[in-house]
Amino acid sequence: ILDGKRLISQINELGETGADTINGGRTRAALTDDEKRGRDLLVKWMKELDLDIQVDKIGNIFGTLPATSSAPGDASRPLMIGSHIDTVVNAGAFDGCYGVLAGLAVVRAFRQAGIQPTRPITVAAFTNEEGIRYQPDMMGSLVYAGGAPLAAILDTIGTDGTRLGDELERIGYAGEMEPGAIIPHEYIELHIEQGPILEAEGIQIGAVENLQGISWQEITITGTANHAGTTPTRLRHDAGYAAASVITFLRDIASNGTTLATIGSMRFEPNVINVIPRLARFTVDLRDPDEARLQAAEQKLKDFLAALAEKEGVQISSEQLVRFQPVMFDQGIVAQIIQSAESAGLSYRRMTSGAGHDAQMIARIAPAAMIFVPSKDGISHNPAEFTSEEELIRGANLLLDVVKHRLPD
Amino acid sequence: ILDGKRLISQINELGETGADTINGGRTRAALTDDEKRGRDLLVKWMKELDLDIQVDKIGNIFGTLPATSSAPGDASRPLMIGSHIDTVVNAGAFDGCYGVLAGLAVVRAFRQAGIQPTRPITVAAFTNEEGIRYQPDMMGSLVYAGGAPLAAILDTIGTDGTRLGDELERIGYAGEMEPGAIIPHEYIELHIEQGPILEAEGIQIGAVENLQGISWQEITITGTANHAGTTPTRLRHDAGYAAASVITFLRDIASNGTTLATIGSMRFEPNVINVIPRLARFTVDLRDPDEARLQAAEQKLKDFLAALAEKEGVQISSEQLVRFQPVMFDQGIVAQIIQSAESAGLSYRRMTSGAGHDAQMIARIAPAAMIFVPSKDGISHNPAEFTSEEELIRGANLLLDVVKHRLPD
Ligand SMILES: NC(=O)NCCC(=O)O
Ligand SMILES: NC(=O)NCCC(=O)O
Repeated sequence: ILDGKRLISQINELGETGADTINGGRTRAALTDDEKRGRDLLVKWMKELDLDIQVDKIGNIFGTLPATSSAPGDASRPLMIGSHIDTVVNAGAFDGCYGVLAGLAVVRAFRQAGIQPTRPITVAAFTNEEGIRYQPDMMGSLVYAGGAPLAAILDTIGTDGTRLGDELERIGYAGEMEPGAIIPHEYIELHIEQGPILEAEGIQIGAVENLQGISWQEITITGTANHAGTTPTRLRHDAGYAAASVITFLRDIASNGTTLATIGSMRFEPNVINVIPRLARFTVDLRDPDEARLQAAEQKLKDFLAALAEKEGVQISSEQLVRFQPVMFDQGIVAQIIQSAESAGLSYRRMTSGAGHDAQMIARIAPAAMIFVPSKDGISHNPAEFTSEEELIRGANLLLDVVKHRLPD
Repeated sequence: ILDGKRLISQINELGETGADTINGGRTRAALTDDEKRGRDLLVKWMKELDLDIQVDKIGNIFGTLPATSSAPGDASRPLMIGSHIDTVVNAGAFDGCYGVLAGLAVVRAFRQAGIQPTRPITVAAFTNEEGIRYQPDMMGSLVYAGGAPLAAILDTIGTDGTRLGDELERIGYAGEMEPGAIIPHEYIELHIEQGPILEAEGIQIGAVENLQGISWQEITITGTANHAGTTPTRLRHDAGYAAASVITFLRDIASNGTTLATIGSMRFEPNVINVIPRLARFTVDLRDPDEARLQAAEQKLKDFLAALAEKEGVQISSEQLVRFQPVMFDQGIVAQIIQSAESAGLSYRRMTSGAGHDAQMIARIAPAAMIFVPSKDGISHNPAEFTSEEELIRGANLLLDVVKHRLPD
């Protein structure tokens, strides 16, 4: 049993960093001053546990509890547990932070019991999981897993015009370690579900066995601006109408089967009440746990856009922003999560992660899996994000049990 | 026959005022410095013709060629010809200016022939027809016709935060005359069609016998922001999807019959790629030449919104921004336009104005009608707006002939 009170007080204290007293929640966009304060707090707590701290060149922070023997070979490769501490705008207190601070709680339990683990345990906080200031999201774990070249990523320009590498230097978290220098033996991430399933089914624990594929596109439709009062409907090339047809088409696709489709951002030009839109630019977020079905949805969208361009006399272009294949997590770890839940008398279910997570990236280089706890009303990325203290502590204790069972005897 | 060369050179000179050398066209938003320069040019040209100049309290400019007898009674009420000289952003050179400068050309023809008219001829330039900086549009003529209270209109706050009355003082065009102090005997407005019909049918002159009703609403749909990856389709309250359904529904309404529907402006919140939109706010521009059909379209939209709110679990509110009933122009003036076109050997058709115009407002207080000349490709509110010099001069000569025939013998 770990120190639940300390876990909750650390979640609360980190949750105060970057608090927005006007709009609610907290904002710690990656590599801002507020996020630096969050990092400093984490490093301070890692030092209190006397962990071995390393920062890599993309700013990922690792705090390692050394093992009994520091022999080279497999036993030197750490069991890694972690998540991220950056947030979206006006975020809840749990998304990301919970997994990192539960990691510290696990390590603290070892320290308090005076036990050294049979392999190192590393608590990881990956840079820029949310991707709101710099794209793509899950950036630190992606780079760590070798999925994107460090040099190019350091040159990323943010929504505020800053260069990522410069901001990393500025806040003092451009580390020395090469990303990926230490390949974890396994990776386990504890996270709030950020969705409604566990709560709706009255289940306490999600044993996350896969994570759906994510396809992000930005679509630009160019029509002809013209006068709303004088242009007959049949002569219009209305970029806004064409964009609306895409939205309703994607809803049809998403109404059957497992594919999800979201149009989250939309912009019209010139955006004037009595002018037919010349341009509509919007994003499409398509997800499916099955790669073939995700590809089928992408193809249906492509075919629809081609027919729409023809029918409405508009030009349509599309840029792929993000494309991650579905990830299967490690069945051994998932089986352990289930077994630990059963021994603790907790209700559980196998499930898919709808959201992207750092585990998805680290799964490229190590066996990985995730544990979910319920999110009230499925709400996340919102000040109203909520998981009870009881559920948070329960999840952390489950993580501790899983970690113990995954260490060599 | 009037001085066509001078008309064209004045259109070009006024067209240079507020020219945007980067994005093309010219921008003379009402009561800006650039529009003041346009006003000063117009007043200078009115003085050159020795017109009697008056400015009213909403900044409408009137230049009057006095009549043979200045007897009181009906003969003292002027035949008014005019339009506006403010523009939209990156506008063409003809929308509005053409009607005002053709008015000057008509008066010039009288001056050059040394003839005094049998009733005063007033050339009018109404303030803020376009309504891009201050709403509503057709403001000067609306106030002049008693359709909106002067004091409230002077308090209008613009898109740039300025108070209309202050800007009017600042540019020196807050006049002494009460709006509506002089009720015209008749009002005739010459304008480019701003639509494709005349060009498509190869017809030279439009005898505009009515102007369709205009209904502007701003609709706000409030749903629930949530995570694009974790929220099942059936649990979404997607404000963006609901807005898209309104657009496709309105296209269906507009595909049969005479109603036009345009969604020109659209905004999502929070407008983030992986967040289901919490809010969609957009404008609806509905038009129909028939009041009963316009009301039917408004009612169909209302019913659709009510059903949509229910179906999607979203809140929908609507604010009426503008509501003008269809206007029937004066059949006597229209008949004269047709007769003048016939004598000049010009092809013509009776037609409806799709766009709102100052004539629509002045029709509340005096018999009014409009003359249209073709717009290339029906394009307007765009630097590509084009009508040939030949067509412009032809329209102005027709206006002169109509004016001559509407004066008492
Ligand atoms: N966990 C999480 O919210 N990740 C953001 C990436 C996404 O799934 O859209
Ligand atoms: N003539 C013109 O473009 N008026 C603007 C008002 C409108 O019809 O939308």
